[in-house]
Amino acid sequence: MISVPPGYVAQTTSTLAACLARVPHLAERLGGKPDAWHIEEVGDGNLNLVFKVYGPRGAMAVKQALPYVRLVGESWPLPLSRAHYEHTALSEQAKHTGRLTPEIYHYDDKLALIAMELLEPHIIMRHGMIAGIEYPRFAGDISTFMARTLFFTSDLALAADRKKAMIGAFSGNTALCKITEDLIFTDPYRIADLNRWTKPFLDAYAARWREDDDLKLAASRLKLKFMSSAEALLHGDLHTGSVMLTTQDTRVIDPEFAFMGPMGFDVGAMVANFLLNYFSQDGHEDQAGARNSYRAWILQTLVQIWNDFAEKFLALWRGHATGDAYPSSLFQGELGAIRLEAERRAYMSRLWTDTLGFAAAKMIRRILGLAHNIDLEKITNERVRATCEARALTLARDMMVNPGGYPDIAAVAAAARSMRAWTPEFS
Amino acid sequence: MISVPPGYVAQTTSTLAACLARVPHLAERLGGKPDAWHIEEVGDGNLNLVFKVYGPRGAMAVKQALPYVRLVGESWPLPLSRAHYEHTALSEQAKHTGRLTPEIYHYDDKLALIAMELLEPHIIMRHGMIAGIEYPRFAGDISTFMARTLFFTSDLALAADRKKAMIGAFSGNTALCKITEDLIFTDPYRIADLNRWTKPFLDAYAARWREDDDLKLAASRLKLKFMSSAEALLHGDLHTGSVMLTTQDTRVIDPEFAFMGPMGFDVGAMVANFLLNYFSQDGHEDQAGARNSYRAWILQTLVQIWNDFAEKFLALWRGHATGDAYPSSLFQGELGAIRLEAERRAYMSRLWTDTLGFAAAKMIRRILGLAHNIDLEKITNERVRATCEARALTLARDMMVNPGGYPDIAAVAAAARSMRAWTPEFS
Repeated sequence: MISVPPGYVAQTTSTLAACLARVPHLAERLGGKPDAWHIEEVGDGNLNLVFKVYGPRGAMAVKQALPYVRLVGESWPLPLSRAHYEHTALSEQAKHTGRLTPEIYHYDDKLALIAMELLEPHIIMRHGMIAGIEYPRFAGDISTFMARTLFFTSDLALAADRKKAMIGAFSGNTALCKITEDLIFTDPYRIADLNRWTKPFLDAYAARWREDDDLKLAASRLKLKFMSSAEALLHGDLHTGSVMLTTQDTRVIDPEFAFMGPMGFDVGAMVANFLLNYFSQDGHEDQAGARNSYRAWILQTLVQIWNDFAEKFLALWRGHATGDAYPSSLFQGELGAIRLEAERRAYMSRLWTDTLGFAAAKMIRRILGLAHNIDLEKITNERVRATCEARALTLARDMMVNPGGYPDIAAVAAAARSMRAWTPEFS
Repeated sequence: MISVPPGYVAQTTSTLAACLARVPHLAERLGGKPDAWHIEEVGDGNLNLVFKVYGPRGAMAVKQALPYVRLVGESWPLPLSRAHYEHTALSEQAKHTGRLTPEIYHYDDKLALIAMELLEPHIIMRHGMIAGIEYPRFAGDISTFMARTLFFTSDLALAADRKKAMIGAFSGNTALCKITEDLIFTDPYRIADLNRWTKPFLDAYAARWREDDDLKLAASRLKLKFMSSAEALLHGDLHTGSVMLTTQDTRVIDPEFAFMGPMGFDVGAMVANFLLNYFSQDGHEDQAGARNSYRAWILQTLVQIWNDFAEKFLALWRGHATGDAYPSSLFQGELGAIRLEAERRAYMSRLWTDTLGFAAAKMIRRILGLAHNIDLEKITNERVRATCEARALTLARDMMVNPGGYPDIAAVAAAARSMRAWTPEFS
């Protein structure tokens, strides 16, 4: 048995009502008596318990960390402290993005439990994209989320002492970071028990990727950046499974991987998941071409996500540069302003290169590593799935090794479109 | 009056004996009765009290932090916690370098006081270099110190969780970091009350440096790197005033600026101080050319410092790569080894570029900013001093803005030699 701190009890649908009833403002919000509350466990993630709780007056979602990885079991312990980091990150993100995160009602450190706004009728974005639903607000919302959370927790907005305090506050979230370090940057490139891929079709790909020194060096450089560049507070797991939305409303959830890291890691996660979903559409259409217009929406949205993000980030920098980096007192006058603006663009260009690399790493790990995406996993015809995956892998490898070939997000979209014209042959 | 925590009392030569006598192993080390101990206050730094204590049996140095900057007074408070960071850094450095740091006898957190080995007949290296003393062991020792302290606290040697714990452990040393952020990377490039320079000779230089956008952007990029790149545990103030030595023995002292930052900052500090001393020699020779052979020793030692450092760092990486970065399991076989070795060299090349930039920033701040070096300040003929300083400034500006012109340390030494042939005209 995994040992847990005193006071921690994993909740069930039978015990949770009594637990919530002890917090007056939660009981008040649900209304009526605890035995009138309806509770369901709905966690479909890899790590935690998630409950929906409905009372006569109101409802809420309750997320509780388990002391191990739910997907694997007690053989893979994982610290409960991740609930603390998730709560801290949610609070920080809410300050900067308001309605783009769920409202927090209550945090219980001992139980590693967060009670928050129940998002209904929102669904996990990944499911929506597999179903071919267009989300017209999404690019605008997610670009705002990324621009504001990354900018306002960076040296561009924060005084150096506050920035260092945030670095300290998240420096203990090591176990969650290690999942990233191992599963994204390392294991897909070596023989590891946890790796899996669509066999036998991708056997040769997995072998080639493991022997590709250019790729492994690029992945290792990204890993070093992940471990040593404390640029801003990252969500840390910003894929389409961490977004709940309707066509009218977008919320970003689950920042338990939060820590102070390189901005491109968050932006790259979003880019990667759009590309993976794009390539997966061939496995989801009833007949060839049925998803053509959806595919066009995906790429158009992908382009808008980066372009809007870059524009919003630059606008924040121009208007709210209250941090200790690039002090405005050094760049007075018209010429200074011109040079500083050029430097802002150079900064965005470096961030774009990081984004490309992190996106590629995240595509590869979802195909050759432990944790896959249902975008691809749901494709039951394995040859079709492998075809989608081989395209994603091949694009990702090129993005990581030849970033100069992708000067902007439009180039990535164009390359994805071309890649779909290629059908790999499996021996 | 600055408020201090309960129990803190600034020591004097009259009170210190009683204070040390309460620690049995210190009393034992000094021997005899406290009233037989001879105590002198010898602090000549900017921040702290430093005592030498001699007893019948043994001796020690005692360093105590004051709650303000000694150089300025109570109007510039500075937290006592810097003694904690200094003690933590000294302990970490001792693990990796053994005899290159002073032995710590005792640390009193409440008094912000460290009792340590009295280094005699060691002198502060800066004084030795002003006097023209050659130190044949120094390049070997300081390159070992830098290679080992930087390597063993980096992602190349540490598991990611231990690295993050170190980041957390030093993230509170914000006040000392802010001194660096302001005085090195910002104030010399703008009008600031604390700036000073050799007037009137350098007035035009100071004005031009303040208006040089290329330079200010380069300095701002370095500042951002200083604030966001947690590569390794830095000494944080590794100049020739933080070295006590004889021709036979080298010790690095005073790491109160320690934090997890970019490696090039430490290496650059050493490079900067050698170059400043090199240019200052014209002000210290009795007759033109009297210091020619010493100048040659300085540049030869400068070249050896970087080259030995790079070689030792690479050797540690090849032999002790126990960290999570560049996992050796990814680079098996002969080809993998060749590629990884090429990557190591590329890493050192990036570190060299950082070193150049940080060295340049540290040269400029000592001439146009608040805190100057006695290497130059001791030159009483102000025109001669300004000539030395103009050469240093001009080289530093080029190193920062045109790093590509300095592919290696030999190129820096050659440029310094050429720069001495130039005599600026002052209007």
